[in-house]
Amino acid sequence: MARPTPLSGFPEWLPDGRLVEQHVLDSLRRTFELHGFAGIETRAVEPLDQLLRKGETSKEVYVLRRLQEEGDGAEGASRGDRAEKQLGLHFDLTVPFARYVLENAGHLAFPFKRYQIQKVWRGERPQEGRFREFVQADIDVVGAGDLPYHYEVELPLVMAEALGELRSVGVPPVRILVNNRKVAEGFYRGLGLDDVEAVLRSIDKLDKVGPDEVARLLVAEAGATAEQASACLELASISGEDVGVVDRVRALAEAHGASTALLETGLDELGALVAAAAERAPGVVVADLKIARGLDYYTGSVYETVLVGHEHLGSICSGGRYDTLASDGANTYPGVGLSIGVSRLVSRLLSAGLVRATRAVPSAVLVAVTDEATRADSDRVAAALRARGIPTDVAPTAAKFGKQIRFADRRGIPFVWFPAGVTADGTATTHQVKDIRSGDQVEADPASWEPPTGDRWATVVAGEQQD
Amino acid sequence: MARPTPLSGFPEWLPDGRLVEQHVLDSLRRTFELHGFAGIETRAVEPLDQLLRKGETSKEVYVLRRLQEEGDGAEGASRGDRAEKQLGLHFDLTVPFARYVLENAGHLAFPFKRYQIQKVWRGERPQEGRFREFVQADIDVVGAGDLPYHYEVELPLVMAEALGELRSVGVPPVRILVNNRKVAEGFYRGLGLDDVEAVLRSIDKLDKVGPDEVARLLVAEAGATAEQASACLELASISGEDVGVVDRVRALAEAHGASTALLETGLDELGALVAAAAERAPGVVVADLKIARGLDYYTGSVYETVLVGHEHLGSICSGGRYDTLASDGANTYPGVGLSIGVSRLVSRLLSAGLVRATRAVPSAVLVAVTDEATRADSDRVAAALRARGIPTDVAPTAAKFGKQIRFADRRGIPFVWFPAGVTADGTATTHQVKDIRSGDQVEADPASWEPPTGDRWATVVAGEQQD
Repeated sequence: MARPTPLSGFPEWLPDGRLVEQHVLDSLRRTFELHGFAGIETRAVEPLDQLLRKGETSKEVYVLRRLQEEGDGAEGASRGDRAEKQLGLHFDLTVPFARYVLENAGHLAFPFKRYQIQKVWRGERPQEGRFREFVQADIDVVGAGDLPYHYEVELPLVMAEALGELRSVGVPPVRILVNNRKVAEGFYRGLGLDDVEAVLRSIDKLDKVGPDEVARLLVAEAGATAEQASACLELASISGEDVGVVDRVRALAEAHGASTALLETGLDELGALVAAAAERAPGVVVADLKIARGLDYYTGSVYETVLVGHEHLGSICSGGRYDTLASDGANTYPGVGLSIGVSRLVSRLLSAGLVRATRAVPSAVLVAVTDEATRADSDRVAAALRARGIPTDVAPTAAKFGKQIRFADRRGIPFVWFPAGVTADGTATTHQVKDIRSGDQVEADPASWEPPTGDRWATVVAGEQQD
Repeated sequence: MARPTPLSGFPEWLPDGRLVEQHVLDSLRRTFELHGFAGIETRAVEPLDQLLRKGETSKEVYVLRRLQEEGDGAEGASRGDRAEKQLGLHFDLTVPFARYVLENAGHLAFPFKRYQIQKVWRGERPQEGRFREFVQADIDVVGAGDLPYHYEVELPLVMAEALGELRSVGVPPVRILVNNRKVAEGFYRGLGLDDVEAVLRSIDKLDKVGPDEVARLLVAEAGATAEQASACLELASISGEDVGVVDRVRALAEAHGASTALLETGLDELGALVAAAAERAPGVVVADLKIARGLDYYTGSVYETVLVGHEHLGSICSGGRYDTLASDGANTYPGVGLSIGVSRLVSRLLSAGLVRATRAVPSAVLVAVTDEATRADSDRVAAALRARGIPTDVAPTAAKFGKQIRFADRRGIPFVWFPAGVTADGTATTHQVKDIRSGDQVEADPASWEPPTGDRWATVVAGEQQD
């Protein structure tokens, strides 16, 4: 086999990169669990008709086929396989979660708060920060029949906390941009623009194509007059961290005669979110009236999140409120949720050198082996250390100690342990442990020696920032 | 959407089942890391030609195709997509690991110890304990050029410890059955049987079809005489926990004039493994000369593992030594590893009621909400508890307290917190926390109250065994 090359769009990390990813995942999970979210996993596949239900062909679904069926319809049919539903890999965690809720509704307690951390697949053309296989970390709350508004305040604050926890290892601060569909829709309808989706689609392009082109699109595709287009752009230009934003939107609506009951409801909600955020996550949540989110199933709050200083990466955590996450006809399940693009985040942390692992292996200690005949002594020392929760490796061969120390050094293992024994001339030696960074060597007892706290487990620290 | 039904072969757990699975995975990971194994993940897909390299069509590979390519060769070709390599989902973690080692050899330090916990997919017909999507937890050590024998002793002992750690939550004890290919091959060749693979294939069926049928197969397919077949069956009947096994095999070989140098090498290795296991994991490792492992790439030790009392489930953790895990022509990478079938294990633990989660959600505390106007007070109590690592939820609505207590009870949340406030008649009330299992209610301070240690996190305990 020739040396294989990476597959574009399918990222893999070396052990020290995986350690960074694992740290991010463990930290997110801890915050989600502290907030009472239950972890679930769903299968990787869904029936193709469910994946395409919302016309999501842009997600470029990967379709599965069993090899034995390939070009062999007849045999497949004779075994009854062709009757199997066509399956595809999920492209997000929302579609599978909605199906899971319907399938298990009788066994779940609502409102149901769940987190889900899994890989998803999209056959899109790979580019920077856009992968074909990537990890998402989602939280959602779903109600049976109804879901109180306060969860729309709660969820972005949980994400603010989860992402904020990562600042201690060098992850840049985040800014969560929030808007409310009721504000947008209420304002557009108040202006007399009824094709709300067309307006949202145009506004969604603001960052990409600029205000002049959006104005042209609003006229051409949403049927706006130049004046209406200008009012939409004025609304989109409003942003801020305090409830003053609400007053500015209200004043703008009044100036254009665009006040509606729906707008007022939306402004009440947006104001409550901004006020709560100002207390619980000051400086993190920003009302930004240009946030549109292309997807038509959002019905209330919508969220996007940027990494401060890395805004060009796009949103690393998005979501919103949807009145119908799932429905089986008899029951409707509204929800609100956000999804972190973990691979995009981790890829950036690694490529920009923002974060690094303290070592590439878990071991804090390498126990040296004096000669193969006494390997069992080294194994006993390792067992004693592990029994007290100290990750420990044993040297692969009884090479010269210099070589064994280099083995530890290459992996970043900070301590080398020399087991007690008897030298060739019959002298008894004691257990010794050497910090190979400082060169300090001390006598030690396998039953009680402890590494410094920060050395026990491989962990993640801030790197030397590249930008 | 009608209520969906499960897909056969694609297991999913309810939140309390996922909690059991997560506990098993966390526990395995901790043991692997204590032994210095670095965690990696590989992508879910491999080029199809690599997946089929060893003629593994029996694994029923799932082939991927992008939806946009479906029945649309012309358009696909014009976009250059058809030139892409055909991809399939991995059916184990060994093939991807071998590819990862070759791809990253220049960045890895050998011997390289890695653990890998991921889903794999096989399009086999689903049956009890056999899934189409399942989680494997693998450990392997791979060397560059050579790999000392002691790792063949080390790895099953790591798995014995990893599985043994789970006994505290009700997982039955395991028995690791070990054999050595050199013993089998040396003995068969000493007997004059040169089609070693045919002999191994026949012996591998012993548990399924019994000794008479295996004797017939040995004659019909491996070219054995009745006497040679009988000697093979005698060898397969030998098992035991101590080095006496080695003497019995040696005596049998001598009686049949089947002693060879290869047999002696194998017996030395098997003896060393049994001796080390007797010290480090007494009663767990059993030499069992009938263990053949169908796969032809094993060259030394081979392992299978049964759950005591659930032997009919088959092996839950298997593996062995292979001299050529990977090779790029210039370099060869020998390895030894074992793989736990986590889904098979967890499925059994859940279906037999051997293990259960203490509750279905992470929360130890539900903070009650007196009325929606004071929800922020409840949020502040929750924030104070979470800041000290106590998983906490807040009631979804300001319902009557009885209803809020039932909300906690349904989820198994042990404590309900009533925030300090002012009653309708102006009386100030203090913070109170109620253990809803005992009914005890006490005054408490959000800044210092602690739940009993065992109540802090949802965890896993032994269930009421069903068998």
